[in-house]
Amino acid sequence: MSKGRLISFEGGDGVGKSTQIGQLESYLRDFGFNVVRVREPGSTPGAERIRRIILEGEPDDWLPMSELLLMNAARHDLIERIIKPALDNGSWVVADRFADSSRAYQIAAGELNPALAENVIQAATGGLEPDLTILLEFPMAEAFARIEEQGGKERRFETKGVEFQRKALNAFYELHERYPQRVARVSAKGKVEEVRERIIRLLETTFDLPMSAPNGR
Amino acid sequence: MSKGRLISFEGGDGVGKSTQIGQLESYLRDFGFNVVRVREPGSTPGAERIRRIILEGEPDDWLPMSELLLMNAARHDLIERIIKPALDNGSWVVADRFADSSRAYQIAAGELNPALAENVIQAATGGLEPDLTILLEFPMAEAFARIEEQGGKERRFETKGVEFQRKALNAFYELHERYPQRVARVSAKGKVEEVRERIIRLLETTFDLPMSAPNGR
Repeated sequence: MSKGRLISFEGGDGVGKSTQIGQLESYLRDFGFNVVRVREPGSTPGAERIRRIILEGEPDDWLPMSELLLMNAARHDLIERIIKPALDNGSWVVADRFADSSRAYQIAAGELNPALAENVIQAATGGLEPDLTILLEFPMAEAFARIEEQGGKERRFETKGVEFQRKALNAFYELHERYPQRVARVSAKGKVEEVRERIIRLLETTFDLPMSAPNGR
Repeated sequence: MSKGRLISFEGGDGVGKSTQIGQLESYLRDFGFNVVRVREPGSTPGAERIRRIILEGEPDDWLPMSELLLMNAARHDLIERIIKPALDNGSWVVADRFADSSRAYQIAAGELNPALAENVIQAATGGLEPDLTILLEFPMAEAFARIEEQGGKERRFETKGVEFQRKALNAFYELHERYPQRVARVSAKGKVEEVRERIIRLLETTFDLPMSAPNGR
């Protein structure tokens, strides 16, 4: 049995990550892959408790460094209890956000010392990075309009303001510049099916699909 | 106005830290110091939320690295919102546990990679260490008997077993060997007043009291 793959979705809120993750799940399952879907922060009982602490409440409840440490406490639990066992048994893991979100939101937008902060990520992940990171792109004004429609309790990040979001998006683009093989930019414009097609073409190229699939045709 | 001092109390549970911290508070106040008492994890609204997550529940709820990250998320909040402002205005801060507890419980007893884990502490503290750490010592059997009498909900660490506690205590002694100027061993045997006298003599030597007190006599 071959080792599984870790694919993360990144980008601003409201860009359609959840919808496209659902599309990708079906696509991979149709090829015979076992697929495990996770979200950050969360997906284990402990990490979901941390999620409530981080995402509910007021923008100033947490300083950026505390937020980084909380995110990585949740991330470590998720990696050790779900992601590593899934990869070991050959599953494909699709993650709604991973360590790049800490780099964008806590480190870049939160203006943390990059070297000190990266040490925290390394301690939590042991160096695990996705095999492919899909950075969904959308003009920020349209993304904000989508966020407004959503509502709900988990709005601490959304209320941090436009400048905070802009710094985070710039950081995502810099990650693409720095790791062009791992971090791919994909336009989120157009219909769900159009975006889905862009992502599937990227997957085919990156992982030699359908040839490498369990029941590759 | 002179800069304040940070004094931490460390040692196994049930060794009488809370009682002696109360004694030291009165002693310092009588000299005219402004005293701020804190406990770890906790003492800010955010850190107290993290405290409940860490200390309640089952021993296996958190892996050592997640626990270290959670402890340091709480520690950073406490340092930035309470300890640093207090030291800056000349107060003396007395802490019921500080970073040495992470070194003993999460790193040594939890068997974490010491270098990676120390990076996490440095990210959270920015290198802040106590001016004096009082390591209260007690034969472990007697300490366990006291813990048994206490009960309550915050028992996750107490239920981790004797071997875990033994590793943590050994780590405290190693910290004394490594930093003999900062980490002082004080016997917790005898009556409250006897232990109090030992601690006060240590304070007098370390900080040149009463000469250096605001209304030093």
